Amino acid sequence: MQAIVLRRRPEGLLSWDDVELVTQPLPTLAEGEALMQVIYLSMDATVRTWLNRGEGYLPAVEIGEVVRCSGIGHIVATNCDAYAVGDLVYSLPGWATYGVVRDDLFTTKLDPDTPLRPMMSVFGGTGAAAYFGLLDVGKPQPGETVVVSAAGGATGSLVGQIAKIAGCRVVGIAGSDDKCAWVTEELGFDGCINHRTEDVAERLRALCPDRVDVYFDNVGGPILDDVLGALNQRGRVVLCGAIAVYNDTGRPAGPGNYLNLISRRGRMEGFITLDYWDRFDECFTQLKTWAAEGKLRWREELVDGLDRCPDALNMLFTGANTGKVVVQVVPEP
Amino acid sequence: MQAIVLRRRPEGLLSWDDVELVTQPLPTLAEGEALMQVIYLSMDATVRTWLNRGEGYLPAVEIGEVVRCSGIGHIVATNCDAYAVGDLVYSLPGWATYGVVRDDLFTTKLDPDTPLRPMMSVFGGTGAAAYFGLLDVGKPQPGETVVVSAAGGATGSLVGQIAKIAGCRVVGIAGSDDKCAWVTEELGFDGCINHRTEDVAERLRALCPDRVDVYFDNVGGPILDDVLGALNQRGRVVLCGAIAVYNDTGRPAGPGNYLNLISRRGRMEGFITLDYWDRFDECFTQLKTWAAEGKLRWREELVDGLDRCPDALNMLFTGANTGKVVVQVVPEP
Repeated sequence: MQAIVLRRRPEGLLSWDDVELVTQPLPTLAEGEALMQVIYLSMDATVRTWLNRGEGYLPAVEIGEVVRCSGIGHIVATNCDAYAVGDLVYSLPGWATYGVVRDDLFTTKLDPDTPLRPMMSVFGGTGAAAYFGLLDVGKPQPGETVVVSAAGGATGSLVGQIAKIAGCRVVGIAGSDDKCAWVTEELGFDGCINHRTEDVAERLRALCPDRVDVYFDNVGGPILDDVLGALNQRGRVVLCGAIAVYNDTGRPAGPGNYLNLISRRGRMEGFITLDYWDRFDECFTQLKTWAAEGKLRWREELVDGLDRCPDALNMLFTGANTGKVVVQVVPEP
Repeated sequence: MQAIVLRRRPEGLLSWDDVELVTQPLPTLAEGEALMQVIYLSMDATVRTWLNRGEGYLPAVEIGEVVRCSGIGHIVATNCDAYAVGDLVYSLPGWATYGVVRDDLFTTKLDPDTPLRPMMSVFGGTGAAAYFGLLDVGKPQPGETVVVSAAGGATGSLVGQIAKIAGCRVVGIAGSDDKCAWVTEELGFDGCINHRTEDVAERLRALCPDRVDVYFDNVGGPILDDVLGALNQRGRVVLCGAIAVYNDTGRPAGPGNYLNLISRRGRMEGFITLDYWDRFDECFTQLKTWAAEGKLRWREELVDGLDRCPDALNMLFTGANTGKVVVQVVPEP
């Protein structure tokens, strides 16, 4: 089997000086373990945070370990009552052609006729982050204004569409005119700001005349500060990620406009999608219903081959992607 | 009557170049208005924020207007059914010897035998900020670790004592050894960090081995950042004020460690005491019970004379005070 292991803690974008592609024997399964062959790997910004030193919601990946990553594949050998050979599973195999899985929180057995790529783009962790982050943490009300950054990304594009379904005015922030056009013309956003060519603070004033009630933040940095400056009374900031600062090597600057949280009774709150595990069924049932009704659309960028994982991950930070970035390790059977 | 009016927006600490003491005739009362003679004025950091341009939870004080401030006094003339001459009221008379009051949210009629100075220090807005901010926003649980800054101040010293009553481990952060000694030796805090002589981040690691579950922030600035660095999983940051930055003239630096709110599922939330108006009775009844049981102590610094208001307000920012700063405008009758 092949795997990509961490060789040193990266600074900035990931490079082949930080990771190495290795060939190694298949692991011997202990009692309670099964082996999955990986078909697709999900590129998520949080993978980059796992490579840094320091404790997050999961331990850091250690030097010499396979880069942690979620993915989908079939069970090919089993020493675990929970899985039979042939089962389709969604787990954390890492950047590898095969991964060991157990009957735990990190592995879900899927219906055998689950369409795999939509599972990566919308009916899996990405969709759950958008659904629970927006609805449970942000609590948008009809008529309110919702702003979402990385609006052309996998999570952001879903957040905006769910906010529209919830009856909100939705303004995206994205890094290209093409992404802005996609979310406004195809996904129904009410507006979108190109943060590379426009003054975000000024455009927020124009596009959000009643200010911002909910901000779903994927980027952090100066954009978070600008939206805090436009926050409405009792505004909520949902912290999903901070792709603008994950690659910073120094201490990142904080949002000075956090002061508005005081005078405007605001709330800024982080969340971890895995905490909603026991409600994933509710979420995916709802997302599938909306998709069947034509209310949810998504895009994906398929990248071919395990060795493309570092490039594929970096796309999230350079903004090269629109929609979900998925690495295809082997063809679907 | 005498009043202190705003002449220009202050930069940094308030000076007599920013405000002017003027003598003017008593106002003519319109229908629905009454006149209070001011006895005590409450020095609160929020007064400083009202002098800045820009919208907060109340409009900014305009140039030429009396500096807004809460205080206590007696009704001496009335054209309002709600108040009779002689009534004791707590209202927003401003920095003045007399103030116009109405039957609205900003005025409360008090029992005639209310002890006035404890009303300023603990059974008024200060106590309500500590009570609702800690219990309703921070939601401390028994056994958790609570940290409070400006621990030697009026609000902070109450927050720590209420957190002890709630069964928490309590660590203060204050600006002098005397203040630290007061809160640990007399108020029962488990520890206190002198931020002027100690490394706050390092001392937090030593004094909060299980990290910080609730941080009640009165200061903002680098101390907020240090505590965010020590935040526990599902930690809550209650934003009450930011005396370290209210006097900043430039854009204040933000807390870079806000990133921990993501990986640790944290929440940072502001609140406005006035929003709890309909529960003030509950709060003051509880605070009085605790005081009668010997569980709450407080200190005040009495400053004599309306013309001392600017100096008295500045004490909050230079750290000259321990406990509540109250300006006595006239002697109690």
